[in-house]
Amino acid sequence: MKPEWIAVDWGTSHLRVWAMQGDAALDQAQSDKGMARVGRDGFQTALLELIEGWLGNTPVDVIACGMVGARQGWVEAPYSAVPCPPTPVAPFRVPGTDSRIRAFVVPGLKQTTPPDVMRGEETQIAGFLAHRSNWDGVICLPGTHTKWVQVSANEVISFRTFMTGEMFDLLSGQSVLQHSVGDGWDDAAFAEAAADVLSKPEQLAARLFGLRAADLLQGQDGATAKAQLSGFLIGAELAATRPYWLGQQLAIIGAKGLSDIYAKALQHQGAFVETANSTECTLAGLRHAHNQTRQTA
Amino acid sequence: MKPEWIAVDWGTSHLRVWAMQGDAALDQAQSDKGMARVGRDGFQTALLELIEGWLGNTPVDVIACGMVGARQGWVEAPYSAVPCPPTPVAPFRVPGTDSRIRAFVVPGLKQTTPPDVMRGEETQIAGFLAHRSNWDGVICLPGTHTKWVQVSANEVISFRTFMTGEMFDLLSGQSVLQHSVGDGWDDAAFAEAAADVLSKPEQLAARLFGLRAADLLQGQDGATAKAQLSGFLIGAELAATRPYWLGQQLAIIGAKGLSDIYAKALQHQGAFVETANSTECTLAGLRHAHNQTRQTA
Repeated sequence: MKPEWIAVDWGTSHLRVWAMQGDAALDQAQSDKGMARVGRDGFQTALLELIEGWLGNTPVDVIACGMVGARQGWVEAPYSAVPCPPTPVAPFRVPGTDSRIRAFVVPGLKQTTPPDVMRGEETQIAGFLAHRSNWDGVICLPGTHTKWVQVSANEVISFRTFMTGEMFDLLSGQSVLQHSVGDGWDDAAFAEAAADVLSKPEQLAARLFGLRAADLLQGQDGATAKAQLSGFLIGAELAATRPYWLGQQLAIIGAKGLSDIYAKALQHQGAFVETANSTECTLAGLRHAHNQTRQTA
Repeated sequence: MKPEWIAVDWGTSHLRVWAMQGDAALDQAQSDKGMARVGRDGFQTALLELIEGWLGNTPVDVIACGMVGARQGWVEAPYSAVPCPPTPVAPFRVPGTDSRIRAFVVPGLKQTTPPDVMRGEETQIAGFLAHRSNWDGVICLPGTHTKWVQVSANEVISFRTFMTGEMFDLLSGQSVLQHSVGDGWDDAAFAEAAADVLSKPEQLAARLFGLRAADLLQGQDGATAKAQLSGFLIGAELAATRPYWLGQQLAIIGAKGLSDIYAKALQHQGAFVETANSTECTLAGLRHAHNQTRQTA
C-alpha cells in the first residue's frame, strides 16, 4: 500500500522517515545521512534512498522538520519569531524536486532576547499540544541540546537551549575524564550529584575534576563517575531553569532513558512531571504541519 | 660548557629541558614528546634526543617534574599528602638509566577530601616560595587544568583543580560553538561575561548556546564570542573559588597571556593580584628539588 504522506525527521546526525496513512505509521526507515553529512545537492538523494519503495505515479507529500531547514539545509525555512504558535506558518515547499514527491520543510523558531533558536522541537511541541487544547506550562525536550519551552494559550512564549548533552559527550568521551567515566549507572550517585549542584550551582566547576581524582586516589568505579557527571551537568541545567519549572505544569518530551533521568531529578525537587514519547509527538506535529500545507495549497 | 645539572618539565603534551649552571639556564630545548605520546620504554630516548649534546663523561643530575611521575610515566613517584610543603620529600631516582645521567622525578601532591591531585604545579609553588619566606596566601596556576592552592607557613594546606582550560578547548574546538567562536579578543566582552556568571553562577548552563544563537541571529563576531566563552568559564571558576581569593593575598603563576586574563577578572572584583613567570618558578622549584636530592644522596 502506498502511503498517503511521508513524515521526515531530519536532524544534524540522523534521518528518519515514516510512511503515513492519516495518523498511523505503516512503515519506517532511517539512515545516518544527517544534515552534517549531506552536501547541498545530496538531500534529495539521501531521502530517496529511504523512501523510493513507497513512491508511485501520483506525487506524495513529504513533510520534514529539523536542521534540514537550516541555511546549510535542503531549503532554508526562515525562523518564526516567538511569541507565536509552534508552527505559525505553512511549511516551506522545496523547489525542483523529483516529480514523485512534493517536499515541505517546517520552519524553526527564534527568540531575539536572549538570542536562541530551535529546529525540530517546534514540531514536537505542536504534536504534543495537538491533543491538549489550552495546555499551559513548561516543556523540557532533553537531548544533545536540551530545550526548555514556556507554553501558554497554544503559543510558545519563550525558550532556552542548554548544551548539557553535548557537554556530557565531550567531557565523558574526549576530556581527561574519559579515563574515569565508564559504562553502567548508579541512581543514587546521580540523584546526589544533581541535588548537590542544584543547591550550590557555583560549585559545578569545582566538581568535574574530582571525578578523575576520585578514580586515581580511591579507585571510584566508572558507573558511579558516569552518573555523577550526568548529575552535575543536569543539576546545573536545573539550577539555571528553576524559574521555568518551579511550580509549573511540566512535560518532558524525549527518548525514554534520558526523559526518565530528567524526570527523576525534577521529582526529587518536588516537581510534578508528565512525560511524552518524542517520536509520537514528532509524527503528530508533522501531521499538523501537513494539514497546514493542504489548507494553504 | 657542560651543565651542572639539567632541569626537565615533562607534562602530558610537552617536554622542555634546560641546561643549568646553578640558578642560570645556559641552554634549552623542547619537543612534543609529552607523557601521553611516549610509551613506558620511550621516556629515556625522548629525553636523550634533547639533552645528548649536553652530556659528558661524568654523570649529570637530571631533575624532572610533571606527569612523568604518574603511574604511566617514567617512574611512579607516589603523591605526598597535603598539608605538607610543596616538595616534602626528595625526588625519586629513576632506576637503570643511561650511565651519563642520574635522573630524578619530583612527586606530586594529593588531597583526600575532596579528592584532588597535582603533578608539576607543586614544583612551581616550591619555586615561587623559594624567594618568599613565610608567604601566606593563595596561588592560582591557570592552564588546561587550573589549580587553586592555599599556602600557609611554607605548606600547601589545600587545593582544587578546575577543568576550565580543557572545557574552553573542547567547547571552542569541537562543540557546535566551533562555528561561532573565532580568533581575536574583546576585553570588554570578556569582563562583562565573567562578571555576569560570577554574580549569577547558576546561569552558566544557560549562557553557552547563546553564543551560537547570537551568531545565527545577529551575526555576532567570533572574537566577541571567544572572549565571552572564556569569560563565562572563568567567571564560573571564580564563583567556585570565591572563598579562596576573597580578601586573600593572591598570586598567579602561569603563561603571560592567560595570567593577565585571570588577573583582569580578579582585579575587576577588587582583588589584589601578583603575577609570577611560570618558567622561572619551575626552574627555581627544580633547583630546590635538586638541593633536596644532594642533601639525601
